[in-house]
Amino acid sequence: MDTQTTAPGMILHWSPRSPFVRKVMVAAHELNLVDQLTLRRTVVRMTDPNRELLADNPISKIPTLVLEDGAVLCDSIVICEYLNALAQGPLFPSGPSRWTTLSRQALANGLLDILILWRNERDKPAEQQTASWLDGFRLKADAALDHFERLASGLAEETFDIAHVTLGCCLSYLDFRFADLNWREGRPHLAAWHETFCARPSARATEIVDA
Amino acid sequence: MDTQTTAPGMILHWSPRSPFVRKVMVAAHELNLVDQLTLRRTVVRMTDPNRELLADNPISKIPTLVLEDGAVLCDSIVICEYLNALAQGPLFPSGPSRWTTLSRQALANGLLDILILWRNERDKPAEQQTASWLDGFRLKADAALDHFERLASGLAEETFDIAHVTLGCCLSYLDFRFADLNWREGRPHLAAWHETFCARPSARATEIVDA
Repeated sequence: MDTQTTAPGMILHWSPRSPFVRKVMVAAHELNLVDQLTLRRTVVRMTDPNRELLADNPISKIPTLVLEDGAVLCDSIVICEYLNALAQGPLFPSGPSRWTTLSRQALANGLLDILILWRNERDKPAEQQTASWLDGFRLKADAALDHFERLASGLAEETFDIAHVTLGCCLSYLDFRFADLNWREGRPHLAAWHETFCARPSARATEIVDA
Repeated sequence: MDTQTTAPGMILHWSPRSPFVRKVMVAAHELNLVDQLTLRRTVVRMTDPNRELLADNPISKIPTLVLEDGAVLCDSIVICEYLNALAQGPLFPSGPSRWTTLSRQALANGLLDILILWRNERDKPAEQQTASWLDGFRLKADAALDHFERLASGLAEETFDIAHVTLGCCLSYLDFRFADLNWREGRPHLAAWHETFCARPSARATEIVDA
């Protein structure tokens, strides 16, 4: 036996363009766990739940991780913390900085949720769109980006953790789906920090590209 | 001085009918921390972000917790874990059962997200509603409730943790906003478990009632 033929143990319901899946993949690269994941291409749409995925995750969301013993972990936050514990990694601090990290992760996750709802809304036929929703999405996205701009000059000095993973994936998703938003305008520190994120091997290995 | 006049130290952006706020309040009651929270009534709507709240939480979501030193924690998951750590409580286990608990919390949170989107959609003028979204919400809510029904006979035996808090608040929210869904039909074990949740002092103290 000179080749390893056993399939890796954990199955990740995966899609190449989901920013939440990318979070998990960036974390897995940072933690050197990629070889332990088998990626299963799983397509989900708000208008069309994936009925196979429903067996593992009844709300049909990706990422979903199936462990070797068949246990299922839902949600990028849970999956990333699990992988970090498995590798005894640095992505989830345990001291007082834990709360800053988790709260920032929640904000960047919340911004991603807003962007996905926004995209669903703007892609509807014009007569079905709700203008006040679109305005609300824009207001909150701008406020969140301004918030991260104020933090940005400090980010480069900090230990790279799950908040940085999430923010990096979120900003790259803006480039991918909201290029017309010009999020860098008036946010030079955030733009500079995002360049350092994009240069990391974990980000380069997981870049979202149009097919 | 025979009365305590100092204001409690943490400020919780609060609303009486938000199920995510209720999660935090149930947790605070379970952990005996209610006296340390000052509740600030904060109204948020998808169509109308709260501009005062934006200063503390740029995505205008409640609950948001402002600590004594001014640091801000966003998201019910983060706030509940922080309160649990403060009280050294049992709501977030640290052993292997942690992942089961966190994943179930994420599922029940995800179901609540779906219910809130569903309510926003069904309350639109009929010609602006998207039928495939409404169908998707129903399919996912049913699948999630069936999933919890399969777990329900075990729930009563377990240590009450943050997954139970979240599921209890979610089922009560169904009663409050989706009574016509008759979620108990075909789900006797979940219905029986929910009764035990509603009987807890923490649930009774935080019940959502119509004004």
